[in-house]
Amino acid sequence: MPHLTVESRRRSELIDITAQVRDLVARNQVTEGALLLFVPHTTAGIFINENADPDVAEDILTTLSGLVPRQGAYRHGEGNSDAHIKAVLTGSSVLVPISQGRLELGTWQGIYLAEFDGPRRRRVTAAFLAPLPEVKA
Amino acid sequence: MPHLTVESRRRSELIDITAQVRDLVARNQVTEGALLLFVPHTTAGIFINENADPDVAEDILTTLSGLVPRQGAYRHGEGNSDAHIKAVLTGSSVLVPISQGRLELGTWQGIYLAEFDGPRRRRVTAAFLAPLPEVKA
Amino acid sequence: MPHLTVESRRRSELIDITAQVRDLVARNQVTEGALLLFVPHTTAGIFINENADPDVAEDILTTLSGLVPRQGAYRHGEGNSDAHIKAVLTGSSVLVPISQGRLELGTWQGIYLAEFDGPRRRRVTAAFLAPLPEVKA
Repeated sequence: MPHLTVESRRRSELIDITAQVRDLVARNQVTEGALLLFVPHTTAGIFINENADPDVAEDILTTLSGLVPRQGAYRHGEGNSDAHIKAVLTGSSVLVPISQGRLELGTWQGIYLAEFDGPRRRRVTAAFLAPLPEVKA
Repeated sequence: MPHLTVESRRRSELIDITAQVRDLVARNQVTEGALLLFVPHTTAGIFINENADPDVAEDILTTLSGLVPRQGAYRHGEGNSDAHIKAVLTGSSVLVPISQGRLELGTWQGIYLAEFDGPRRRRVTAAFLAPLPEVKA
Repeated sequence: MPHLTVESRRRSELIDITAQVRDLVARNQVTEGALLLFVPHTTAGIFINENADPDVAEDILTTLSGLVPRQGAYRHGEGNSDAHIKAVLTGSSVLVPISQGRLELGTWQGIYLAEFDGPRRRRVTAAFLAPLPEVKA
């Protein structure tokens, strides 16, 4: 399947992959449908939010770390329970409509790989889904 | 692409859009597949939960505001970091199966646009996705 | 529509449904596309995370219960507001790519039905979505 490779450089980091994703859509000449981006990892997530002001990403990361601290009364012995939980809260996939060859993201939206247990090499699997024909409204 | 327009009237508000969505499915005469509803905004989300007792929506909103307070040690200068973070926690899309011309929502489920930085005019983009033929089980 | 039935035995419980889901994919002889798993309930969610060490699931459940306590200043009179809110935080669906007849889950990933107000019999609706043909990259 088509996929992206992303290298994180810190334990916790939001990596803007929007440009890579747009390039994937263009290379595959997809004009209508939807793009599923799926993270096959359990300590990283993916979501869509503002990519204009980098302070927003910083606030998201800081707040998630406040809600789910790295140290806590966790049972899992690998010291990364917080990363698993943050991955659940952000989610393992996004699905974006494609119309007239373009990802239908809003003006301020970007797609972020959310690394919670890096640095690591991460993979994002892509699948293009078919639209229903003859939609009228 | 087909879309809905939703007007929020408060800063933080859950707006039940289920009736509008059902109408969209009917107008497009979709019988089988799935409906992607995508929010092209970064301070609003979308999710599915109970729409029978309005107290449930109120509890969801109050609890989210407790977890992610409006005021905090945020870096983003616009005063709406909480709205961005709540949008991440709720998510930017829902995907609902359609069968025999009907949205396959459960008895108590409704679809909510989650406004976290209103009042504003919001858009929800819709894309109908094709089912695989010949599913047998 | 195809669906799975899951019986929960506790109020709060993460139930690994990965084997049932793989079986569904095999029975339907799906080779390419994506599988939507949709939970038509408002006090249960679904998500993907590690299923190797059961302590991870336990940590996820405990942390969610810490963030959204069972008792609180809730308005909804049924005593399960926490379950509704946890369902919103985890989400009502997952979408998994399928390639060469296999669910494209990562090595450590499993699919969990997240029961937050059991014990109950729960349903997970499945819809197979069609891939776009002629993807090249």
